[in-house]
This record gives sequence, C-alpha cells and structure tokens, in this order.
Amino acid sequence: MPTDIWLSRINWSEDGLIPVIAQEAHSGTILMVAWMNREALKLTVEKGEAVYWSRSRKKLWYKGEESGHTQRVKDIFLDCDEDVLLLIVEQTGGIACHTGRHSCFFRKLEGNHWILTAPVIKDPEKIYNKNE
Amino acid sequence: MPTDIWLSRINWSEDGLIPVIAQEAHSGTILMVAWMNREALKLTVEKGEAVYWSRSRKKLWYKGEESGHTQRVKDIFLDCDEDVLLLIVEQTGGIACHTGRHSCFFRKLEGNHWILTAPVIKDPEKIYNKNE
Repeated sequence: MPTDIWLSRINWSEDGLIPVIAQEAHSGTILMVAWMNREALKLTVEKGEAVYWSRSRKKLWYKGEESGHTQRVKDIFLDCDEDVLLLIVEQTGGIACHTGRHSCFFRKLEGNHWILTAPVIKDPEKIYNKNE
Repeated sequence: MPTDIWLSRINWSEDGLIPVIAQEAHSGTILMVAWMNREALKLTVEKGEAVYWSRSRKKLWYKGEESGHTQRVKDIFLDCDEDVLLLIVEQTGGIACHTGRHSCFFRKLEGNHWILTAPVIKDPEKIYNKNE
C-alpha cells in the first residue's frame, strides 16, 4: 500500500500549499502561521521538526536552521475541510517570531489601534548573526 | 482622524481577504480557520461577534446565524507580517464546526492515517434544521 495516501487526503491549494498553524504544546499559545508544500510536510513528519515552505524565498524553510529556534512536533491535526494544518509543537528557545518575540501574534486591537503586547526576548540581529 | 486606519494596516490579500484563526478563550483550543474581508472585520468589531467572509458562498457569513453557534469576540490579534488575524472567542453552544464537533481540527495524524479524535456533539442535521 502506498504510504503517502495521507498526503493526498489534503486539499492542497492551486499552488500546492497548505497554511499551517503552530501552537505551543505546553501553553496553548499560537506561535505563528506558515505554509507547507507536500515535501515540507513529509520532511516534517520524518524529522519530527517543522519544515515549512517559504513563499517569499520559494524554497524549503527548515525552521530554526539559522536561529536555532527549531520546533519539535508532537502532533499534527487536519481540519474538517482538509485545507488547514495544526502543528502542536515545543518551541526551542521560546522564540517563534523573527522579531525575537515568543509569538508572532503580538499586536492587539485596542479601540482603533494595534498595540504591542509582547516584549522582544532577543534582538533579531543577535538571533541571525552566528558570530554574536 | 479617520477611524479605519487600523483596517488599512492589514496586508489584505489580492482578493481583499485575510485568514482568521478562532481560538477559544477559556480552553486555548483552536476552533476553526475562516476568512474576513474589510467589511466582515469591521462588523466583527462593531458587533463583538465573529462575522466572516464565505469564499464558497461569496457573501458575509454571520457565524451562528443559522446554527445559533455565535462566537463572542474577546480580543483580536494581528501577526508580525500583518496578514493573519487571531480572534480570541467564547463559542456559544461549544460547537464551532459544521460537522457538529467542538473544533474543526479533529483529524490527527497517526502513522500514515488521519484518525478522528473528537466526537460529534450534535448531529449537523439537527443544528441546521430549526424545526427539529
């Protein structure tokens, strides 16, 4: 039996992608949303670590390959329409966002303004410069 | 000062939409992912209840208008790239999914199979038939 039937079950977009929510296992915090193609999802399952597809760079994005902030995958869920994935992960370093914050969802609507609600844990320049 | 600057801050897609994650406030459960356009988001804020844009029906979707399963919005977050929204909600009736389940993310990957992990709380035929 082919072992990738589970991959074909997914309603991939016309571009062959699916949006992926990463949720932190121990806290329930939604860390980020990114995209995967078929290869990225397969690699994610094989490695047990999140591998996304970078739409801007048009290549596989091994989460944490530069920053060290990998995501260990504990569970993977698919929604009712089979077109959104939910990854339950533990976030290495506690930083998922490229701004150096815990989560990418740090702007909160207050009245007519988006206000910042979370501190920068580590300066992004230090995250992405191995020589620091 | 125009009061809709906060709406213009969002990186709307070419179709004028943004994906929206609904997370349950008291449990942290991710209930569903849907879409909003500018009008839907404005209405959501005004009403304090989730109003989405149905891509299939191409019209505003007042969540719960048929089922009664409205979502009371407690907070709205925007991500770092300003192209994904996170709604913190309380789910009326405890059912967010059109299949009659609590959450839309009820398929879990086990080996090479998606297995069902959550019970149907209410038969969808009874949810969408007011005469029952």
